[in-house]
Amino acid sequence: MSSEEGSQNPPAEENSEKRLSKKELAKLERQRKRQEAAAASAAAAVSAVTLEADDALAANYGEVALNDLQSKEISGKKWTEVKDLTDELKDKVVLIRGRAQAIRAVGKKMAFVVVRERGFTVQCVLTVAPDLVSPQMVKFTTSLSRESIVDIEGVVSVPGQPITGASQQVEIQVRKLYCVNKAIPLLPINIEDAARSDVEIEKALQAGEQLVRVNQDTRLNFRVLDMRTPTNQGIFRIQCQVENIFRQFLLSEGFVGIHTPKLIAGSSEGGSAVFRLDYKGTPACLAQSPQLHKQMTICGDFGRVFEIGPVFRAEDSFTHRHLCEFTGLDVEMEIKEHYAEVMDVVDHLFVTMFDSLNETCSKELEAINRQYPFERLKYLRKTLRLTFEEGVQMLKEAGVEIDPLGDLNTESERKLGQLVLEKYGTEFYILHCYPLAVRPFYTMPCYDNPKYSNSFDVFIRGEEIISGAQRVQVPEYLTERAQACGIDVKTISTYIDSFRYGAPPHGGFGVGLERVVMLFCALNNIRKTSLFPRDPQRIAP
Amino acid sequence: MSSEEGSQNPPAEENSEKRLSKKELAKLERQRKRQEAAAASAAAAVSAVTLEADDALAANYGEVALNDLQSKEISGKKWTEVKDLTDELKDKVVLIRGRAQAIRAVGKKMAFVVVRERGFTVQCVLTVAPDLVSPQMVKFTTSLSRESIVDIEGVVSVPGQPITGASQQVEIQVRKLYCVNKAIPLLPINIEDAARSDVEIEKALQAGEQLVRVNQDTRLNFRVLDMRTPTNQGIFRIQCQVENIFRQFLLSEGFVGIHTPKLIAGSSEGGSAVFRLDYKGTPACLAQSPQLHKQMTICGDFGRVFEIGPVFRAEDSFTHRHLCEFTGLDVEMEIKEHYAEVMDVVDHLFVTMFDSLNETCSKELEAINRQYPFERLKYLRKTLRLTFEEGVQMLKEAGVEIDPLGDLNTESERKLGQLVLEKYGTEFYILHCYPLAVRPFYTMPCYDNPKYSNSFDVFIRGEEIISGAQRVQVPEYLTERAQACGIDVKTISTYIDSFRYGAPPHGGFGVGLERVVMLFCALNNIRKTSLFPRDPQRIAP
Repeated sequence: MSSEEGSQNPPAEENSEKRLSKKELAKLERQRKRQEAAAASAAAAVSAVTLEADDALAANYGEVALNDLQSKEISGKKWTEVKDLTDELKDKVVLIRGRAQAIRAVGKKMAFVVVRERGFTVQCVLTVAPDLVSPQMVKFTTSLSRESIVDIEGVVSVPGQPITGASQQVEIQVRKLYCVNKAIPLLPINIEDAARSDVEIEKALQAGEQLVRVNQDTRLNFRVLDMRTPTNQGIFRIQCQVENIFRQFLLSEGFVGIHTPKLIAGSSEGGSAVFRLDYKGTPACLAQSPQLHKQMTICGDFGRVFEIGPVFRAEDSFTHRHLCEFTGLDVEMEIKEHYAEVMDVVDHLFVTMFDSLNETCSKELEAINRQYPFERLKYLRKTLRLTFEEGVQMLKEAGVEIDPLGDLNTESERKLGQLVLEKYGTEFYILHCYPLAVRPFYTMPCYDNPKYSNSFDVFIRGEEIISGAQRVQVPEYLTERAQACGIDVKTISTYIDSFRYGAPPHGGFGVGLERVVMLFCALNNIRKTSLFPRDPQRIAP
Repeated sequence: MSSEEGSQNPPAEENSEKRLSKKELAKLERQRKRQEAAAASAAAAVSAVTLEADDALAANYGEVALNDLQSKEISGKKWTEVKDLTDELKDKVVLIRGRAQAIRAVGKKMAFVVVRERGFTVQCVLTVAPDLVSPQMVKFTTSLSRESIVDIEGVVSVPGQPITGASQQVEIQVRKLYCVNKAIPLLPINIEDAARSDVEIEKALQAGEQLVRVNQDTRLNFRVLDMRTPTNQGIFRIQCQVENIFRQFLLSEGFVGIHTPKLIAGSSEGGSAVFRLDYKGTPACLAQSPQLHKQMTICGDFGRVFEIGPVFRAEDSFTHRHLCEFTGLDVEMEIKEHYAEVMDVVDHLFVTMFDSLNETCSKELEAINRQYPFERLKYLRKTLRLTFEEGVQMLKEAGVEIDPLGDLNTESERKLGQLVLEKYGTEFYILHCYPLAVRPFYTMPCYDNPKYSNSFDVFIRGEEIISGAQRVQVPEYLTERAQACGIDVKTISTYIDSFRYGAPPHGGFGVGLERVVMLFCALNNIRKTSLFPRDPQRIAP
């Protein structure tokens, strides 16, 4: 479709990822006004068409009046979903509602409309015929703006050859067509452009044709349009599924879902990079993690808990993998003896998740793959566990020297990921027993070497998605550790006091939902897996 | 148990619900210091006991050293959960971990310990016997502070008569007993006190005994202890289940779970009562609802969506049913013809939920019922729907005159709830077709009378839990409605623009999770159904 409708596109955008300047915003505003004017004149034209008095079939098409959309009646009419249109419905009359994704006139007597509903598409055909379809109806249809919502009634037919321009392998011979809601004629981005792969753009370029490439910022500025691409429909359905599996797995293992407050007195974990606000005259901040409160519920006898909720970080990280607001998947659990019990949960949870995603989301994964080609994640049935020391040694042998008691940086994490893949054949593994100095104060030191800690990170494709550890449950020792980390103990007294009433040994972990989806699908930017991303330069839409 | 351990209680608190003054906080601080001193001397005493050199059985009891709790080894030992202790395990040796809920000495040769794990309790018996239990072991046990975490190994026995002081109908004949983590000797509140019903307190008073009544604020100040009562264990497990059913029902109906941002530029919905903050130099606020963004995902082709997440209201409402932060359950969906389609979802969802809660949470409901007696919710198989006008008429006939184009206040809602229960035998119903003037600007007016709107509220036991409506999907009309409601259209231009690219008719609703749980269980305060409630006067713990 893309080349046919190319004329409706705004000028091709440069590919550099940058922010909109005031000048550009003004340009967009002017563009919007032009669009509104165009929409008004298009509407006038449509009215003219539908008012043509000489069409005996005028009742079979036109715009639905607003009043008729205000819950006027329950007619009992049944709409068929586009995804359910199969050859079993051959010769049946169906009614569908969807978007006019593409509209094409063939002379004055025929028109094709591809109708899309939730990612599925069907080709609808109008052919002028006495008592069925008038030339005016064809004219009305071809004057519709793309992405408008239409109701179409027609007869299902099965063409002799495969249909390439739509997902459904039947056509609808249109009898009635009503516009339920109009889109403006000139969209700021076209769905075809937003859905195009780089491969397609390169191929066209070699053939001398320049196709539009929509950059990341433009996508996000017009997210409502960008969301409609098959890729984005896939990404966010997978994201929902990741969350489902997370919940269902943990519920089956005796965990309880909880909600802890996001509004916190003082400053969360005593750290910087928090969003501060005034809470009824009290200084407050947004929780950087549910860490302290989820531990408190363990002290409160819930045994095993999880939470899914927003996490706020005012960090100035402007990378492909940091957001100022993301969805945290948090777990905390009593342990009997060893933090390996926590790693066991991680292991079983994620292997179950990957298996399930591959099995139940194959359509979504294929959709993403068409735009952003990637290979399915390689993972083992039993997740590999390496100690931090072993990781350092592997890097050393590959010529990468790092501080054995420091942290890994993004580069060394990526390198280690490569080495692990080569040696063990997995892109998902656990690195545990991290240096104590690089972990938060509440992390339990190792029993035999206080330079290390009972902690772990988990990696997908060389990038961290999970941090976890055993926690210190003895209040006196927790105080000592906080002081050693330079934290003003007064600011966390409620937290420390929680451990004075009897606290079981426990541990837990936190996962970033957007990162899991990004890395499972090998996407290159976390803004692709957040519906409305927030970063240091973006708080809209 | 309560009367036996009464001596350990702090002085009985007055029942009035009030806030802690600085003086009281200072008193608490002094109390805490006394407790720490007491804990230190108790610890010294315990050490003295365990160091008694003349006990050949010294290895069978004592405190576990911190070092042994730092993931020292994976022994392969198996712990049995308290809830799994049944007579099938008779004569078997088991190992359990839990809290010493109650400890009672019978002379110097015998002691009873009731051990609690996640709400389930078992009685453990120590009897001095050669080569098995020493008098020193009994002494160590009776010196333990309540709520300490213990590991107990022993033989399961089945006594001849029913056990009244514990949930499990077996006993454990203790062979080994280790303290894993100590509670301070003098707890700020005792679990028995916090778990006591008003009925029990009244009954005791009539018999001349004054039992401690723990007031709401004290509970919340020491929430980690309060959480351990059977009632609270029940409430938050039911809350988790409400959320599960909400998710599972909607997923099965084709809804997609989403996450919208809580950090919003400007001020959400143009309203007051928002928490404001600085976002990297830009004025921002916390979302008062996911309303605008969830509608944007409908414009983005997700068809049917739901979100579970925090909602922030800076309102100064200090009532039994308002919080400054609560968990919103939000739904938005395309509709074909009528907002009744949205009410159908509400109807099926909640009937499914109530059925499921009654079926799967009977233990939790019983636990709550013991402390706060209530009758199970009365609801119909097909949820009653009344129009607002019908409601006004019912009130009028009962002698309550209200403005037919105004809103219901708490009192009239409650009265209408009574009338509906008497007439229709249900405590759950939908009131729809509200006056337009009392609904938000994006609410669709009725097709035949613009004084009313395509909107509804849903009530449980005379209190509102849900608000919902059809939305305006036409940008020009949405602008008009916003202006009519005195909203500066510039502040919501991104939202209105979302409808310019083709927007299907749609509607949705929002539910307060804490309210559903509160009203389903007929509790009298929403602070009882929030783990860490936030209100105008509370942002801790």
